[in-house]
Amino acid sequence: MTTTSSAPGKVYLFGEHAVVYGEPAVPCAIERRAHVTVSEREDSRLRVCSGDLSIDGFTVEYSGDRDAGGTPDVDVPAPIVDAAMGYVDAAVEQARAAADAPTAGFDVTIDSEIPLGAGLGSSAAVVVAGIDAATRELGVELDAREVADRAYQVEHTVQDGEASRADTFCSAMGGVVRVSGDDCTTLDAPALPFVIGYDGTSHDTGELVAGVRALREEFGFVADTVTAIGDLVRRGEAALADGDVATLGRLMDINHGLLSGLGVSGRTLDAMVWAARDGGADGAKLTGAGGGGSIVALDAGSGAETALSLTPDCEAAFRADLAREGVRVE
Amino acid sequence: MTTTSSAPGKVYLFGEHAVVYGEPAVPCAIERRAHVTVSEREDSRLRVCSGDLSIDGFTVEYSGDRDAGGTPDVDVPAPIVDAAMGYVDAAVEQARAAADAPTAGFDVTIDSEIPLGAGLGSSAAVVVAGIDAATRELGVELDAREVADRAYQVEHTVQDGEASRADTFCSAMGGVVRVSGDDCTTLDAPALPFVIGYDGTSHDTGELVAGVRALREEFGFVADTVTAIGDLVRRGEAALADGDVATLGRLMDINHGLLSGLGVSGRTLDAMVWAARDGGADGAKLTGAGGGGSIVALDAGSGAETALSLTPDCEAAFRADLAREGVRVE
Repeated sequence: MTTTSSAPGKVYLFGEHAVVYGEPAVPCAIERRAHVTVSEREDSRLRVCSGDLSIDGFTVEYSGDRDAGGTPDVDVPAPIVDAAMGYVDAAVEQARAAADAPTAGFDVTIDSEIPLGAGLGSSAAVVVAGIDAATRELGVELDAREVADRAYQVEHTVQDGEASRADTFCSAMGGVVRVSGDDCTTLDAPALPFVIGYDGTSHDTGELVAGVRALREEFGFVADTVTAIGDLVRRGEAALADGDVATLGRLMDINHGLLSGLGVSGRTLDAMVWAARDGGADGAKLTGAGGGGSIVALDAGSGAETALSLTPDCEAAFRADLAREGVRVE
Repeated sequence: MTTTSSAPGKVYLFGEHAVVYGEPAVPCAIERRAHVTVSEREDSRLRVCSGDLSIDGFTVEYSGDRDAGGTPDVDVPAPIVDAAMGYVDAAVEQARAAADAPTAGFDVTIDSEIPLGAGLGSSAAVVVAGIDAATRELGVELDAREVADRAYQVEHTVQDGEASRADTFCSAMGGVVRVSGDDCTTLDAPALPFVIGYDGTSHDTGELVAGVRALREEFGFVADTVTAIGDLVRRGEAALADGDVATLGRLMDINHGLLSGLGVSGRTLDAMVWAARDGGADGAKLTGAGGGGSIVALDAGSGAETALSLTPDCEAAFRADLAREGVRVE
């Protein structure tokens, strides 16, 4: 048998970084999905094949502890393989536990539309889709919230306790999410015509979070800026409830400036943000940890995407509307 | 007889826009000066000649009310001439009043190293130097504070009551200034190796100030951001007293981000700020009203200036160290 599940990536409409200090944040699922196809094997081995987990595809086959399994035959750097395999390993482990099938083996194929390391939640989407597909393959159908919770456990383990519940909850549930501490809820929202620009780089989230922490401890006005972002998010929730996309865009612009004040923007991010605005977007901001990576704009027309595609610092520009649906079997 | 006085332009180290709401700001005089040469005439006419008041030079000669004086023979647009002549007119009027010589006539030559409309205080410098030169030419030597005060009256009149005391005080007194409302004082400061980038455009200060006002009235967190800038300025005063240039640079970076949050940065300003930082500056921010115009960086080396000169959006990049001396006779 074969089971394919998919789950969406995400952008932050508002509130990244401030969420670390108890302020609310609003991640949104986007119509860029990771597809994970799982076939139960006769044995207990795990074979993982991916065309898109990184720039080059790779295939890894091993059984049990991969550190003891010799060098996999792959054409990507070992750290990337280790990182990716850590997620797949732990996701399969969650599926085995959920289905009470501790020795189940799988062929796993990952096919993701979400650039890896772009701050668009690719790992969460792979984990969410992987748990869903593997449990279904074992005859167990989990509630989306349980998939979210198990996917969070995976990220928590793989990321050494540094994970947020937001990414996995958003990918599993879809739509617009409000996260505050460990508390995640979905919000009513209008259609959100997201456009994304990606500069082709990835940055160390831990370092960026630590940088904000140090700045916040040194300067009281940086702590106040974190609070200001929280207030902005609360205003944004009202705009979401009103379906007021124009105000959402203006708040995104301000949120980007306040994130710049926290020191987490970057040359390429600012260039992409201005390209999107000049292209006619209602607003634009960096999304995720910052430094480099991705920006998100709101634009129902084609101007922002065109402007981004003409921006030298933008490696990929694409539309990715709000995804109403989270994890699903295909 | 002929008298030449010069006065420096300025940059804002910290606090523009927030100063409108009672927060302190810190303008600094820079080693880019406006030179005004004045010769008393036999008659009461006023003849103004400038090589640098705008991109093209112009010469205007008239007597009394220039609206009744026919069309001046100039090769620049009338609004620019009117604006420039308004300042010179009013400066001469102040000199006449200070010297109790209501019918004195002058040949005035303006030679400025400060780009016009770049947000670098060119008009204040011309007015300050003009008042100083014209009063000296009439045998009166004013204290720099009185020059500052009379120059402020000029800007207040010409700018329809919208002038700040900061520009004229800073140009007349030189050095690093703390302005809070109408209260201006000079601060002790280390050498400040400013580098300036100018994008060749000028923007409407009144519109930008009005935009911040509207945003601040609509969103409480924008008011909080204004307050955060004030707190940043107060921290910057301590760094100035400590001679801590590295901290000044970091505060400039944060100040730029908070100004972005107020909606007053722009594509070219962000591009120049990043060029300066990537070139090795201790910090960089927009200076003045924003939208477009100039950025200021701190860099004792040559990296920021080089990086700016290679930036397509930067029309002019130059070093302009802190000017300790304000208005002076040459």
